[in-house]
Amino acid sequence: MALIVQKYGGTSVGDVERIKNVARRCLAAQKAGNDVAVVVSAMSGETNRLLKLTQQISERPGEREQDVVAATGEQVTIGLLALAIQSLGGKARSFLGHQVRIVTDSDHTRARIKSIDHEKLLASLKAGEIAVVAGFQGIDEEGSITTLGRGGSDTSAVALAASLKADACEIYTDVDGVYTTDPNLCPAARKLEKVSYEEMLELAGAGAKVLQIRSVEFAMKYNVPLWVKSSFTNDPGTLVCPEDKAMESVVVSGIAYDKNEAKVALRGVNDRPGVAARVFKPLSDAGIIVDLIVQNVSQNGKTDITFTVGKTDVPKAKDIVMKALDTIGAEKIETDDKIAKVSIVGVGMRNHAGVATKAFEVLSNAGINIEMISTSEIKVSVVIQEKFMELAVRELHTAFGLDKE
Amino acid sequence: MALIVQKYGGTSVGDVERIKNVARRCLAAQKAGNDVAVVVSAMSGETNRLLKLTQQISERPGEREQDVVAATGEQVTIGLLALAIQSLGGKARSFLGHQVRIVTDSDHTRARIKSIDHEKLLASLKAGEIAVVAGFQGIDEEGSITTLGRGGSDTSAVALAASLKADACEIYTDVDGVYTTDPNLCPAARKLEKVSYEEMLELAGAGAKVLQIRSVEFAMKYNVPLWVKSSFTNDPGTLVCPEDKAMESVVVSGIAYDKNEAKVALRGVNDRPGVAARVFKPLSDAGIIVDLIVQNVSQNGKTDITFTVGKTDVPKAKDIVMKALDTIGAEKIETDDKIAKVSIVGVGMRNHAGVATKAFEVLSNAGINIEMISTSEIKVSVVIQEKFMELAVRELHTAFGLDKE
Repeated sequence: MALIVQKYGGTSVGDVERIKNVARRCLAAQKAGNDVAVVVSAMSGETNRLLKLTQQISERPGEREQDVVAATGEQVTIGLLALAIQSLGGKARSFLGHQVRIVTDSDHTRARIKSIDHEKLLASLKAGEIAVVAGFQGIDEEGSITTLGRGGSDTSAVALAASLKADACEIYTDVDGVYTTDPNLCPAARKLEKVSYEEMLELAGAGAKVLQIRSVEFAMKYNVPLWVKSSFTNDPGTLVCPEDKAMESVVVSGIAYDKNEAKVALRGVNDRPGVAARVFKPLSDAGIIVDLIVQNVSQNGKTDITFTVGKTDVPKAKDIVMKALDTIGAEKIETDDKIAKVSIVGVGMRNHAGVATKAFEVLSNAGINIEMISTSEIKVSVVIQEKFMELAVRELHTAFGLDKE
Repeated sequence: MALIVQKYGGTSVGDVERIKNVARRCLAAQKAGNDVAVVVSAMSGETNRLLKLTQQISERPGEREQDVVAATGEQVTIGLLALAIQSLGGKARSFLGHQVRIVTDSDHTRARIKSIDHEKLLASLKAGEIAVVAGFQGIDEEGSITTLGRGGSDTSAVALAASLKADACEIYTDVDGVYTTDPNLCPAARKLEKVSYEEMLELAGAGAKVLQIRSVEFAMKYNVPLWVKSSFTNDPGTLVCPEDKAMESVVVSGIAYDKNEAKVALRGVNDRPGVAARVFKPLSDAGIIVDLIVQNVSQNGKTDITFTVGKTDVPKAKDIVMKALDTIGAEKIETDDKIAKVSIVGVGMRNHAGVATKAFEVLSNAGINIEMISTSEIKVSVVIQEKFMELAVRELHTAFGLDKE
């Protein structure tokens, strides 16, 4: 008898009929001989509706109270799903973050899970119930409600699976697995049967939206087999798991893109020690996440520093850098938000030279200029003009043999 | 320095602007030198929306999970009100039932408060915060969320006031006090400055909707001075308090009506011991609340038993009585849901004979037939045809000197 944690996202529980569909799936998994704990998100649109209310009240809503409001979305869904299971003749019991209990730090709106006390959950499963757990939420040491940030329900599910030592964690969504790239952008995209934790992390970090990045970190850390499946089909989906020999023979597993970043370039910066720190320390102090950083070779004691930040952070980042302009001696700041980042990911890259070179050739042949480059052990990212993004993804997808037959 | 518990109902927090209005009122009370705890209901319409969702999932939703869903309405309001107070420069902290904590029995959807552990609330007040508490909800010994039934936020507020030994409990609503009768029905209705707990209990029990009956019981038991005020005006409102000499000199304080009941008549019942029990035991076992019961004088060993139940309970009540028909020997059952109950209430009745007689004369002069009569020490209730209800209320209001000058 296996223990499975299932997680259903907002679109999978988007209305009453869909919630009933999820109830049938949970019961089928139980009937197949499994203990089933299920984590659910808020009905689609609900979290946005709630956050909009808080913004109508206050331009800068206090984060503790914002969490109190936002956490109600998942509370509604667990009650409704438990009722739907009961109305189909099954046994079910809902659990809120403070009932499980899922203890987090006090960093409201982006809290991190510290511990899970799953005793009540196990008792519920032992009694033959399907345990229906609110995703996205926890409780801090003081008893205040916390939330885990956008997509946090994925993390709730994986953390629960790790805590319960579940045999599998199944993430149900509106796509039937992890693809070589976004099928909406590239019709030749192919569904992957398997992908390693490392690759999934890089893909998620590079813009693929199928899983929240922290949930993958959690799964890797605790070795939780993670399935990405569709709640609308019976497709087996994609398994996210430890790397194996077969994976290494594939050079590139997937291509991700991200058009939510903008480029900030500082021209004519004094090239002396401490300059980079003077630029990036105040940015990180202000909570601005800097993704790529490129510094060119110095000429005449002057250099250029270019970096990318989220598009919405551009005005704030510009203000901060302007203040430091004198001390770093930069001549001017240029920003460009018409860019896109395209990333090639694959664990096989470690043993295959020339992946980056090949990518540059492919883009050059397509007439696409590369503005920034960043590489890691299993990833090559390039920043290009946004209008070329679709073309770049398709050309790379074909060139690295990812197109479906 | 006084401690005040304020309670705002659904219409008072019905939208973002109204929530900001409530925030200003809370802050004004604090600025006037008071410690302020505030209890709020769900935004108007929200509880109905949530319950409708549960009914779309299941014809008979399980009550534990129904409470999980319903309790979110108040959770949204406390978060929003705390944010509104903060955005006006005040300090506020929200509290859910399990955070206060308000412990109830496990009788879901109609739980009763057993105890309140107000330590965290007092700490919040001491820190200069306005403590914003979710009405309507509690938590049972097992940690499950419970709700207190329709209008339960009034009870939450009074229970909190009793627990905190508050100097006053102010119930803010969309009317500016307790009236001699419903002003919508009778334009001559007059606002009362004061009304005794006993009168308020009888008025609430007789259909006046201004306060939940259990909140008045609670206030009477713990001697909490209870104000009914409008959240939209600065009218001083009505004080509900212990009876005093001045009240006794007023024979009738108010007239209430209720058109949510229906009449069930059993004709030709065997008049022998135990028959009434055979009729009413199975009804109460089925959770049906019987209000008035009248049994006529026996003729030839046969009698009639007539009683009233809520209109929605009529089919169920009829089924149950049908089953007992043979053993009680009744000849037939008649039901009538076109009735209304009109009640005259006043503590002065105790010392004034002839109130019932006068009422009967007034109705008779107006050509209204009385179908059932029930009296208590401070109340006379009559059941009449619904179409005469408005006329009856107005005639009695004038006859007992309640019209405003």
